[in-house]
Amino acid sequence: MAAFEAVVTVTLKPEILDPAGEATQGVLHHMGYAVRDLRIGRHIRLTVEAKDAEEAEGLAGQMAEELLANPVMETFRVEVSAL
Amino acid sequence: MAAFEAVVTVTLKPEILDPAGEATQGVLHHMGYAVRDLRIGRHIRLTVEAKDAEEAEGLAGQMAEELLANPVMETFRVEVSAL
Repeated sequence: MAAFEAVVTVTLKPEILDPAGEATQGVLHHMGYAVRDLRIGRHIRLTVEAKDAEEAEGLAGQMAEELLANPVMETFRVEVSAL
Repeated sequence: MAAFEAVVTVTLKPEILDPAGEATQGVLHHMGYAVRDLRIGRHIRLTVEAKDAEEAEGLAGQMAEELLANPVMETFRVEVSAL
């Protein structure tokens, strides 16, 4: 077994409203920044023990499906690197 | 001017406690996952107009310093790609 770093990035599906993102974008406009399509997601970083990177990625994907992401409103992607 | 996608990843500094991350890690343990060092940050994605990628990266960095990240507790990194 070895330790792997997994980053699970959870983002809202395109059809789901993002009130916090809209509010943030509005403030940036007031500050003079011309931005659009601002969306806020979660960046979850963890360390997991696994026999190889493939197993680590599978475990992180399971955690995302079962707990870290809400499958109704969100999608996720997993990136794994050796520690 | 061209449109660029900027992703600002905001994470807590290592010395700052992350109660939400600890709670999530605790639930994963109860579910049988051997994870550690779980930390939750923000993944902010936006579109910005700029003359080139370097300017887009500079603008996104300014937005992070002025609004998106709390410099006392958080650090950030910016990734820019052409749209």
